[in-house]
Amino acid sequence: MQETLIMTPGPTYVHEDVRRALMKPITNPDLDLNFYEFYRGLCDKIKRFLNTENEVLVLCGEGILGLEAACASLIEPGDKVLCIHNGIFGKGFGDFAKMYGGDVVYYEGDYKSGIKYQELEEFLKNNNDFKVATLVHCETPSGITNDVEKLCPLLKKYGIITVVDSVAGMGGEEFKVDEWNIDIALGGSQKCISASPGLTLLSISSDAWNKIKNRKSPIVGFYANLNNWSTWYEDKWFPYTQPISDLYALDVAFDRMLKDKNMIERHKDIAHRVRHSLIEGGLELYPLDSFSNTVTTINIPEGITYKEIYEDMLNKHNIMIAGAFDFLKDKVIRIGHMGENCYEEKLYLTLKALNSVLKEHNIDLKKDLHQSFVLD
Amino acid sequence: MQETLIMTPGPTYVHEDVRRALMKPITNPDLDLNFYEFYRGLCDKIKRFLNTENEVLVLCGEGILGLEAACASLIEPGDKVLCIHNGIFGKGFGDFAKMYGGDVVYYEGDYKSGIKYQELEEFLKNNNDFKVATLVHCETPSGITNDVEKLCPLLKKYGIITVVDSVAGMGGEEFKVDEWNIDIALGGSQKCISASPGLTLLSISSDAWNKIKNRKSPIVGFYANLNNWSTWYEDKWFPYTQPISDLYALDVAFDRMLKDKNMIERHKDIAHRVRHSLIEGGLELYPLDSFSNTVTTINIPEGITYKEIYEDMLNKHNIMIAGAFDFLKDKVIRIGHMGENCYEEKLYLTLKALNSVLKEHNIDLKKDLHQSFVLD
Amino acid sequence: MQETLIMTPGPTYVHEDVRRALMKPITNPDLDLNFYEFYRGLCDKIKRFLNTENEVLVLCGEGILGLEAACASLIEPGDKVLCIHNGIFGKGFGDFAKMYGGDVVYYEGDYKSGIKYQELEEFLKNNNDFKVATLVHCETPSGITNDVEKLCPLLKKYGIITVVDSVAGMGGEEFKVDEWNIDIALGGSQKCISASPGLTLLSISSDAWNKIKNRKSPIVGFYANLNNWSTWYEDKWFPYTQPISDLYALDVAFDRMLKDKNMIERHKDIAHRVRHSLIEGGLELYPLDSFSNTVTTINIPEGITYKEIYEDMLNKHNIMIAGAFDFLKDKVIRIGHMGENCYEEKLYLTLKALNSVLKEHNIDLKKDLHQSFVLD
Amino acid sequence: MQETLIMTPGPTYVHEDVRRALMKPITNPDLDLNFYEFYRGLCDKIKRFLNTENEVLVLCGEGILGLEAACASLIEPGDKVLCIHNGIFGKGFGDFAKMYGGDVVYYEGDYKSGIKYQELEEFLKNNNDFKVATLVHCETPSGITNDVEKLCPLLKKYGIITVVDSVAGMGGEEFKVDEWNIDIALGGSQKCISASPGLTLLSISSDAWNKIKNRKSPIVGFYANLNNWSTWYEDKWFPYTQPISDLYALDVAFDRMLKDKNMIERHKDIAHRVRHSLIEGGLELYPLDSFSNTVTTINIPEGITYKEIYEDMLNKHNIMIAGAFDFLKDKVIRIGHMGENCYEEKLYLTLKALNSVLKEHNIDLKKDLHQSFVLD
Repeated sequence: MQETLIMTPGPTYVHEDVRRALMKPITNPDLDLNFYEFYRGLCDKIKRFLNTENEVLVLCGEGILGLEAACASLIEPGDKVLCIHNGIFGKGFGDFAKMYGGDVVYYEGDYKSGIKYQELEEFLKNNNDFKVATLVHCETPSGITNDVEKLCPLLKKYGIITVVDSVAGMGGEEFKVDEWNIDIALGGSQKCISASPGLTLLSISSDAWNKIKNRKSPIVGFYANLNNWSTWYEDKWFPYTQPISDLYALDVAFDRMLKDKNMIERHKDIAHRVRHSLIEGGLELYPLDSFSNTVTTINIPEGITYKEIYEDMLNKHNIMIAGAFDFLKDKVIRIGHMGENCYEEKLYLTLKALNSVLKEHNIDLKKDLHQSFVLD
Repeated sequence: MQETLIMTPGPTYVHEDVRRALMKPITNPDLDLNFYEFYRGLCDKIKRFLNTENEVLVLCGEGILGLEAACASLIEPGDKVLCIHNGIFGKGFGDFAKMYGGDVVYYEGDYKSGIKYQELEEFLKNNNDFKVATLVHCETPSGITNDVEKLCPLLKKYGIITVVDSVAGMGGEEFKVDEWNIDIALGGSQKCISASPGLTLLSISSDAWNKIKNRKSPIVGFYANLNNWSTWYEDKWFPYTQPISDLYALDVAFDRMLKDKNMIERHKDIAHRVRHSLIEGGLELYPLDSFSNTVTTINIPEGITYKEIYEDMLNKHNIMIAGAFDFLKDKVIRIGHMGENCYEEKLYLTLKALNSVLKEHNIDLKKDLHQSFVLD
Repeated sequence: MQETLIMTPGPTYVHEDVRRALMKPITNPDLDLNFYEFYRGLCDKIKRFLNTENEVLVLCGEGILGLEAACASLIEPGDKVLCIHNGIFGKGFGDFAKMYGGDVVYYEGDYKSGIKYQELEEFLKNNNDFKVATLVHCETPSGITNDVEKLCPLLKKYGIITVVDSVAGMGGEEFKVDEWNIDIALGGSQKCISASPGLTLLSISSDAWNKIKNRKSPIVGFYANLNNWSTWYEDKWFPYTQPISDLYALDVAFDRMLKDKNMIERHKDIAHRVRHSLIEGGLELYPLDSFSNTVTTINIPEGITYKEIYEDMLNKHNIMIAGAFDFLKDKVIRIGHMGENCYEEKLYLTLKALNSVLKEHNIDLKKDLHQSFVLD
Repeated sequence: MQETLIMTPGPTYVHEDVRRALMKPITNPDLDLNFYEFYRGLCDKIKRFLNTENEVLVLCGEGILGLEAACASLIEPGDKVLCIHNGIFGKGFGDFAKMYGGDVVYYEGDYKSGIKYQELEEFLKNNNDFKVATLVHCETPSGITNDVEKLCPLLKKYGIITVVDSVAGMGGEEFKVDEWNIDIALGGSQKCISASPGLTLLSISSDAWNKIKNRKSPIVGFYANLNNWSTWYEDKWFPYTQPISDLYALDVAFDRMLKDKNMIERHKDIAHRVRHSLIEGGLELYPLDSFSNTVTTINIPEGITYKEIYEDMLNKHNIMIAGAFDFLKDKVIRIGHMGENCYEEKLYLTLKALNSVLKEHNIDLKKDLHQSFVLD
């Protein structure tokens, strides 16, 4: 008798060691000076994970809070913001920029491809007076990973502050904040990091801090105001009581990842094998290129619906996979292979179950999915 | 060998059963329909706890997020807001109102007393065209509990939307949202509720919802925007991935409290005995009246400093108590007796230790604190 | 980063739910009357599991304690005991019988086969004046499961008390105590039951109880004396303080198994597929017939040693498998597939790792082990 | 809402850290060489705890198993054994000696006093040809602690092997195995050590080992046969699969105790204050002298029964205390103050509840029990 295998693109399985840390008795994180050292130690681990010397913060809230905090803190009314998008999440970034008064210009890429370096380069030649550019590293709904490594230095060349949502990327894709000139990098606890949902983390460059500290207008809001954090360690004061149990768990999650020298390789390998087995089976991936290493998005074949696949996977095979939403609703299914879910045996079971569900619905498969996965 | 006893006014001790719930393996709270039922069940428990039929929400963030969400969602630029205050937290409420454009009028009470009904009644006769009034139930820094039972109906008589911060009150003080006409009641997970910090809960009356839904200007911000929650159950859609582990734990915390028929009585009794023993010992309470049942604030006697008390309590007796901040910094010490910390044996140990610390510093005590506590 | 996969023939993986039960705060099991009901409820679950109306007891000690308790309690000096053996454990049973004064006759079967019904039938025709016969259901060292279903009724026809060690069988093999006339059936917590080691369980028929209660000589020993248990429920008295935490966990383990309607089928299926893939690969199983559904014993091929296989599996693939001892030492390796270890994905990983280890040592395999396992 | 406080003389409260260790995932303790080092490390901690260089073993079974193992392994048919007793447990020791063929001579002390050194000295002058003497350190039923420090060297002077049951003593009373010449010292996991019941531990001197190894007759039994353990470390072989989860927990329990420099002092102090408050209240202790520091036995006053006290304590105050059995049944109540139960606040609550129960039954108390306890 086994638990439902949750193979959606996050939240991922939370390892028992991480959950055990949730259980630790707590101290008073406002008063206990040891807690300030703990929090700093955690941030240092995240720095190593993100390959950065930039300051790192963990906020008490879901991933979207980090994104909002970046926009709220950086953007002043009238600031020009470039919203680079090739997917649902990328486009939504623009709404946050506008909410805080940004004058948003949208740069739209092909929604089935990664953002093209040369096209953006061309565009920027005549359009580059932006204070901030927003960009999504891994577009979870479509399963596309943008080439942040090249795009950010390009933007930075024009003095544009880069804000990158890597919630679904970091941990599963290479991610080098300093080398790649990312001013604000955003992540969430519940994707590749495989801790419980409820925390968002971000790194902030000194360029970004400068913009924040030298605003002309005050930041609207307290909870998403990064300025409140500028001297937390010196003053031994947090803007609010810290979610200490969640932070204990996050710390263990980072310990686990920092010990795992093979993490990115594993994601690449598993993702490759998943895609290979789907293609060998005759199925069609949604993206044309720039495939994500953390989530695979598959076009639903003729003859079966999302609901049928989802329910049969769950009820007959005890495995939960995801569909998508917005314009992808009912068009695709998604299999997550991130963090603690990115292990061969889990994908084997998932592909075997999918194989069985499709066959029961008379979908023709050229090869058995799990067998191609194994033979690879 | 025992753990440090954390007797500060929150976060409180988290019972093992509650922490064990943190450890439960999780599902995908976005996709798993059972989770929507769980979340609704949790909200129903909170309704019973708050004695209300109003809608209840739990937000992913510390208590201050609920307060900000109330202000951000209710207040439009130019709205008249009455900030009733007799303490640090009450006054700070006004800052949030102003942040979101409120035209704030401050009504200041005596900082050593509860807000006086008759004085406010008098004031309101000529000043009552407020959209919203903000009020703190229990002023944690000073240990004063305001008579919300009488004050809110008075405000409501003038059609004013009442927003009450009861983060440090609910669970330890009687609290009847519907009977007392509280439009938005705010609480946090980490005080009397005795769950880990990181969640804020609020009840919202239909009057408050009407104001929110009929705004002329859009709400600035997403994370603190209550409107995003208006159809979560019908649409099976949350504004962000829910902090499922923390919610599992909160649910158990409410189960425990709803089973405990004696909870408010216990807080009253313990608080009374604590105050009695301090007064018998010759110490002075900070408030003159309206003593809180969840936290006791004591003036630091001549001949000893906050630092000395705090450190001796911690280092020699393994008990953490709190001081305060702002104008109370170094003037008072505070002992929390809320939720899981509100048990006779814990206060006995705390008072015995305090007795010993004071005596070692040659502070004259008329009677031994722990003995008065026991004899009472 | 994952834990070592322990694929030895027990102790097996202990499910988190079972381990969580270990953690439950305890009561005083000597004084708390609720505990007596709990213990009885647990025994009732075991009865259902064993398909018996016989009394069931759980003793505080490893599996061998149950075996000793059966011998110590049943056998008086001079009693004739038939030790039926076709393996190391079966033969060792005789030592226990002798220790307590039994006059032991050994009936030896082929060590590579199950005990043959007809041969035993023949033997018994002229040799049947035994008080007790001992028999092992599943010989863990060799991976052979004896046909207890037929052998016990045959013995019982002659009025012989049957004592069956099913420590490694029950849960993974069909096991019907009443239908099969098993007087004392023995099990341990750490094999298919998948609880932590430290408990032994046994069912005792009324025939066996009669022999125990009507002994002429006293039982030597207290801890292994079943007579001390004859009125535990009526008298609300246990011979010693019960290992309450271990029993809490065992109870959850039985809850899990009783809910799992497919348990025996799963063992049969996985065991079959494991053997199939090994044979397809050109490897040789140790037994010639009567293959166990809980452990597979494989002859080590020429060109590699046990130590090499064990260490490479562990150090390069993070999987622990077992060798054997006595005359099988260094001759075989054993893979356990019992209880919580009997899941497809675990055997897939194990066979894939074994495949890789053998290939690296230039052992020729006709087919890849894990691929045959999957293709089956 | 709080749990029942279990204030019986064992099993005691098991600290959360110790229970959390129970939950750890396990390895195969038969095959994993690291486990042998772990087990040895645990035994080394126990040696420090017992102040001994003697070999230490932990057996998989309740405390009584250790006692039986000592008798079974040491005593050969016809061996002269001196059973020194002044209580129910001391006398019962003789039964074990007889079970294994011992020729038992009983030396009976006053059942309300500790064994008198001079009287035993006198006795031994003319009666000293014993192979083994058995003795109980702390008689749990009567609450008497014998002066093992003096008695064992006296016995040893005559070359007698001393076997001391300190199940209820070690951890709460000073206990120096080597200095006091104790050949076999016996303990259990569930008393002052405050781990879950199910383990017994013993230290064995080289004199004792010599007797065991040079027996003329074989030891009857396997599970209680210490000889099976003589080369466990060298051979990397245990007589049976070790109860690894329980051992993990025991290890943490010893870590906690070894860190606690004040443990014995605390037991002395609490025990003294408990007795003082009972006497001040006008109640009568059962023993006349040699009061135990781990359990206090109180004569039930006229006008109330054991059942009434037990049930009112449990049902009205949520505290479980114990009565006794055998000739003490219904004559006394017992309060345990051992290990994790030996903290001021727990005894305060217990005495306050007892005070209330007695008063409700119109038992006249000269002073309130909990107040004397506090004032002391």
